[in-house]
Amino acid sequence: MNRKNQLPPNEIAYKIRSGHLPSLSRMITRVESNRLEDQNYANDVLNELLPYTGNSLRIGISGIPGSGKSTFMEAFGTKLCEQGMKIAVLAIDPSSPYSGGSILGDSTRMEKLTQHPNAFVRPSPSNGRHGGLHSKTFETMLLCEAAGYDIVFIETVGVGQSEGEVRELVDFFMLLTIARSGDDLQGIKRGILELVDYIIVNKCDGELIRESKQTAISLKHSLQLIKPPTKEWSQRVITCSSINGNGLDQIQNDINQFFDHIKQNDFLSQRRVDQKKNWFHRSIKQTILHSIYSDETVRNILLDQEIKFLNNEIGLSEASKKVLNSIYR
Amino acid sequence: MNRKNQLPPNEIAYKIRSGHLPSLSRMITRVESNRLEDQNYANDVLNELLPYTGNSLRIGISGIPGSGKSTFMEAFGTKLCEQGMKIAVLAIDPSSPYSGGSILGDSTRMEKLTQHPNAFVRPSPSNGRHGGLHSKTFETMLLCEAAGYDIVFIETVGVGQSEGEVRELVDFFMLLTIARSGDDLQGIKRGILELVDYIIVNKCDGELIRESKQTAISLKHSLQLIKPPTKEWSQRVITCSSINGNGLDQIQNDINQFFDHIKQNDFLSQRRVDQKKNWFHRSIKQTILHSIYSDETVRNILLDQEIKFLNNEIGLSEASKKVLNSIYR
Repeated sequence: MNRKNQLPPNEIAYKIRSGHLPSLSRMITRVESNRLEDQNYANDVLNELLPYTGNSLRIGISGIPGSGKSTFMEAFGTKLCEQGMKIAVLAIDPSSPYSGGSILGDSTRMEKLTQHPNAFVRPSPSNGRHGGLHSKTFETMLLCEAAGYDIVFIETVGVGQSEGEVRELVDFFMLLTIARSGDDLQGIKRGILELVDYIIVNKCDGELIRESKQTAISLKHSLQLIKPPTKEWSQRVITCSSINGNGLDQIQNDINQFFDHIKQNDFLSQRRVDQKKNWFHRSIKQTILHSIYSDETVRNILLDQEIKFLNNEIGLSEASKKVLNSIYR
Repeated sequence: MNRKNQLPPNEIAYKIRSGHLPSLSRMITRVESNRLEDQNYANDVLNELLPYTGNSLRIGISGIPGSGKSTFMEAFGTKLCEQGMKIAVLAIDPSSPYSGGSILGDSTRMEKLTQHPNAFVRPSPSNGRHGGLHSKTFETMLLCEAAGYDIVFIETVGVGQSEGEVRELVDFFMLLTIARSGDDLQGIKRGILELVDYIIVNKCDGELIRESKQTAISLKHSLQLIKPPTKEWSQRVITCSSINGNGLDQIQNDINQFFDHIKQNDFLSQRRVDQKKNWFHRSIKQTILHSIYSDETVRNILLDQEIKFLNNEIGLSEASKKVLNSIYR
């Protein structure tokens, strides 16, 4: 990006706050960039916007492949938009570490929602090795908050890998599932149950109504053995059909109840402090490693130790010591 | 662990090389430990064992939930063991970030294989935030190699999140799938196809034979558009039944052909250099962060900046600068 054409941080911040979508999109691209210049600029803009963040409901939504996440988001998101709410959906899109491209192309699968003027749907690549989440999803969510979105949904494919990360970013965490999931799906349940505030048995329509309700009952039983992740909030299970809309009202009511509850008890403010603390350390660690790997003296010693290690002339402990000494020189 | 009862690194290394299973298991626990004392000890033992590593076939196996990974490993692994081969299976077990416990308990699902004297099955927790893989899976694999296992399988649940990480650790990467996967599963195919050397359409038996073969054909078509991850090796697709054993011979032959190919062309040695290089940097980065967070001066400044950041008195850029200055003091 050309520095000459770059707006001062306070100006682009103002544009984002005014709801200027191209500015929001471009800023997200900068936030997700690996270039130091982009990162510094993004940090400055975020700093300007920070006073205007914190007002959205931060909701995580995870579901096994085939549970109908996109169809659910299309139905539920559009419903909220039609009530006048502004909705952002950050869909995590498993990326190819080789071609770098996104794979799902989720936005094409939420056609109605994507076109609604109150909605902002952004698929982000999961940047490969970090598992499900993009390492900058939290920053992207802050940008959406500053842009005035009332609810920010963070959506991931869930098989027990990225749920822990999602939990750290959001206030409320919903799991989408369906009736009669296979053995493998049953297997990963316990660990996920400890993380979620709410479970939706989707596709409760047509021939699947009875089985969906059965699944909901057995999930309720399983939950009795679990310590809920949010204090004084009993996890709930509900059946829903994203096709005929049954259950969507209830879900909306429950979400409102949940936020009333955690606002009254200061649980929300505590959760936000934890989120900000996690963000701080995630970001500081990235900066530390980036800086150390960019330092010429350290870099030379690193490469020297790498060669020696590859030639079996030196062990990891010894190599680590040499690198550390070059940092604290 | 009690330092007094701790064997010198060369002695425990010798025990592992002699095939003493309790020593191998205990060492894996030390490798996976977050305690610095354990990590240093593990590095010393690995250093002793390094000359005895490198002789196994390192094979990744990933599959969507419900594709029958455990059943396949039970059938294929047992078959190899009965031929006299020694097989290690490192199953990644999504762990609960809250309770810390493992969820799948995969070993109980490979009963026959687990009990075979030639097999070593070890489920490792995915340690939460790292996505699918445990950050120490590579080290665990090296321990198994030194213990004389001919093939080490690294098995993960696959929905496009951890495949990139697995690819970096192994020589040969197989994907397990089944006939008629849902829309979501179709969606993530392209990115994964770029990573795998081999695709197995499992559960090709009973009523599913025709559909499985159809799926295999359409996968072959898709592969024509993909650049294979291994030079001069055309990716293959095969149907297989883990129940009646059809296809298992072919899979074994193909694996042998693959390794003959990459050994002849020096691709294997290049892949091993890359694996070792990745290991080096993964480990160095962990050590750097651990050391910096343990340094008292840095730590005090970090906590001070954290408080200021939480109180909105300071931005991330400024906080990062202060922390970096305290490192290069």
